[in-house]
Amino acid sequence: MLAQANVKSEITSLVDRKDLGALKKYLEPWAPADLAPIIADLPIGQLGALFRVGSRDLVVMTFTYMPLEEQKKLLKLLTQEQAAALLNALPPDDRTSFLNELPLDVAMQLLSMLTPDERQVAQALLAYPEHSVGRMMTLDYVAVHPEWTVRQALDYIREHGYDRETLNVIFVVDDGGHIMDDIRVRRFLLSPLDLPVRSLLDGNYAMLSPTDDREKALDLFKKYDRVALPVVDENRKLIGIVTVDDMLDVAEEEATEDIQKLGGTEALDEPYTTIALSRMVKKRASWLVVLFLGEMLTATAMSFFEDEIARAVVLALFVPLVISSGGNAGSQAATLVIRALALGEFRLRDWWRIMRRELVAGTALGLILGVIGFLRIAVWSMFSNIYGPHWILVAATVGLALVGIVLWGSLMGSMLPLVLKRLGFDPATSSAPFVATLVDVTGLIIYFSVAFVIMKGTLL
Amino acid sequence: MLAQANVKSEITSLVDRKDLGALKKYLEPWAPADLAPIIADLPIGQLGALFRVGSRDLVVMTFTYMPLEEQKKLLKLLTQEQAAALLNALPPDDRTSFLNELPLDVAMQLLSMLTPDERQVAQALLAYPEHSVGRMMTLDYVAVHPEWTVRQALDYIREHGYDRETLNVIFVVDDGGHIMDDIRVRRFLLSPLDLPVRSLLDGNYAMLSPTDDREKALDLFKKYDRVALPVVDENRKLIGIVTVDDMLDVAEEEATEDIQKLGGTEALDEPYTTIALSRMVKKRASWLVVLFLGEMLTATAMSFFEDEIARAVVLALFVPLVISSGGNAGSQAATLVIRALALGEFRLRDWWRIMRRELVAGTALGLILGVIGFLRIAVWSMFSNIYGPHWILVAATVGLALVGIVLWGSLMGSMLPLVLKRLGFDPATSSAPFVATLVDVTGLIIYFSVAFVIMKGTLL
Repeated sequence: MLAQANVKSEITSLVDRKDLGALKKYLEPWAPADLAPIIADLPIGQLGALFRVGSRDLVVMTFTYMPLEEQKKLLKLLTQEQAAALLNALPPDDRTSFLNELPLDVAMQLLSMLTPDERQVAQALLAYPEHSVGRMMTLDYVAVHPEWTVRQALDYIREHGYDRETLNVIFVVDDGGHIMDDIRVRRFLLSPLDLPVRSLLDGNYAMLSPTDDREKALDLFKKYDRVALPVVDENRKLIGIVTVDDMLDVAEEEATEDIQKLGGTEALDEPYTTIALSRMVKKRASWLVVLFLGEMLTATAMSFFEDEIARAVVLALFVPLVISSGGNAGSQAATLVIRALALGEFRLRDWWRIMRRELVAGTALGLILGVIGFLRIAVWSMFSNIYGPHWILVAATVGLALVGIVLWGSLMGSMLPLVLKRLGFDPATSSAPFVATLVDVTGLIIYFSVAFVIMKGTLL
Repeated sequence: MLAQANVKSEITSLVDRKDLGALKKYLEPWAPADLAPIIADLPIGQLGALFRVGSRDLVVMTFTYMPLEEQKKLLKLLTQEQAAALLNALPPDDRTSFLNELPLDVAMQLLSMLTPDERQVAQALLAYPEHSVGRMMTLDYVAVHPEWTVRQALDYIREHGYDRETLNVIFVVDDGGHIMDDIRVRRFLLSPLDLPVRSLLDGNYAMLSPTDDREKALDLFKKYDRVALPVVDENRKLIGIVTVDDMLDVAEEEATEDIQKLGGTEALDEPYTTIALSRMVKKRASWLVVLFLGEMLTATAMSFFEDEIARAVVLALFVPLVISSGGNAGSQAATLVIRALALGEFRLRDWWRIMRRELVAGTALGLILGVIGFLRIAVWSMFSNIYGPHWILVAATVGLALVGIVLWGSLMGSMLPLVLKRLGFDPATSSAPFVATLVDVTGLIIYFSVAFVIMKGTLL
């Protein structure tokens, strides 16, 4: 904290003194990832000065680490020429994701600043669907030919590699540009210089299509432990690469989406702290209303049992307790099954194995809660008359209903995601609150049915 | 699928014919990550044959991709000598995580098979706490000295780099082994051969301590986009590295933990499909019982209003609807805030900003549900007498209570994770069901209080 404050005041004073030479020198040793958060909340005028004097490399990379709002402000502050230089120098994948966040007219204006070559690249990348591999692709890779020697390949890398986003993996392509293999750069470093590149080929490579979903890319990276994967067109022609550093962001975003859906809201798709309130309310309201409409069935179900409640008001006292326990058991089961599905731990056709597990687990959990519930009423009744002379019937009703409802909740919670997946929906949509709502309605029916059987002739 | 079946039958027939030469040749071109899942469910005898004839590199790497159960079986099947060779050749970080999963006596037995050097390494790594950077560390890195030339460094890499886990980053250390910088291997490739290594240093490097939590490593990798980070002791002496491919697994495991906690269960720490049922029931029961005990307060709260319910049974009908809406709103808010906290979107001292957002969002959401609830009762009452002559009072009670309860739920859901974090607990512990339970109890009080004010003198 203190260090950051010092850095900021140092920059401020250098800007104030207009000592741009010293400022440039001061910025030199900084890592972009460290510099970006420190300068993000500088007054925009100082930020502009800093971006005008910093070395192009530093400025460009620091820009990629800045928050979107600051990026937009900065770009407005630079001269047309400076903005164009910055945009042209941005790594294509970072540029794509920046342009994607802008209103269409601004994006178009910025596109027009690019050189014809860079514009073509940017437009091609933006044409791929959101969350596709194409959007994350970068075109800065090194490709060599199989008939070259290792020495030729290394010379080529040394000559042409400067601007390449990653040199950790070298791609081997035939004369038509079709991929033949990907080879870690260490193989080149460790091989005799006169060896032909062809003899390094092992034919082991994974590849992606630009229209693949980014989750597929994530799966391949996890499986093969690579730092970069090639992207090829339908003829296996190499058109770009995707790098592992983008995958950590993808993994984070995908987990956020799943967590938010499980929490009973649409995925926000932007940070909670900066999303416009109206947009957040809309995303939350839609699910809340759906759940509310579903939960209305509880009022309908309850009205069927209105006479029973009137005769034995004590029954009403335990309604929230029994139905919410079913909901909780259902949330647990749904959460576990949805996550296991996302991690590929089992397939749909294993549903019977899952159901068997939940039958056992649900019964055990139901018995635990049922016994506690029974004892709670029994103990209270020993010291007071709160549940009337027939308290043992009340205790039996609550205890038995709990066994049934918790078991039912576990089964519903575990099977609903599978049904949704089978129907082609995202299983995470069967959020914990969604399952809880379903279990609430059916739980009421179980509760009052048990009560009817046990209390008929006495309380009912 | 078909291809996998073919591979398996091919391997089976080669083993049956005892044609080990052909088997070895057949295995040659396979990527370990592809081979492991295909052979994982081969009869264990065949798997043994396969591991005995495969090349050491293939066998070792394939082993790291096998499920734990198969790894254990395999090791038992190999001769003492073969098992020792395999264990000694495993990458240290993979070996650590394998040994960590075994019962202590088995782990000790295996440790004794290692060469003294490897045993020392393994014991040192196992001594670090679980989920620490030390456990994921590998010692196979390349370090060079600043006074060397690029040519000397490349020669050194070529000679000593064979077994190194990653050559993407080269570390520069002084004579005492203290870290001076980390340099991407591409810098070496792109620099003139006579340049001293010293002139490549930029002083930009991040580093980890072996006792750091793995989440800190994940954060640094996300921030700096590196493929490997150095691990240093308290004197900044380089003792190992952590690589990015392990980070995708860490990200996945951490997300799984958070998701499971949010779903109202303890983190399982093993796959849902293979965890022993008794262990799973235990992990789920503890939270379910806590929630149940909390929810018992609803029965207590309801009993305070028993007279009101007896006088106006219609009130009981809407209890599940109104309190569950509060719970749903609370789950949403809790989920969003917990995730935003995990992503570092805001700090605890920003609580007032969050509360202000939830005040507005909660009021808006409450109004939406309140209006729908009011209309639902009003419309039903036009066509039936189900809610009695005072239906407008019922509708007003439900509508107003909804506004209050949804607002209250949103506030509780957003603030509770912050309180937990402030007290030093994991905010994800305030799972959606936990918040829902709290809101259920307080929601009842809000509901009956609103009813009391509105219906006093008529229904109550």
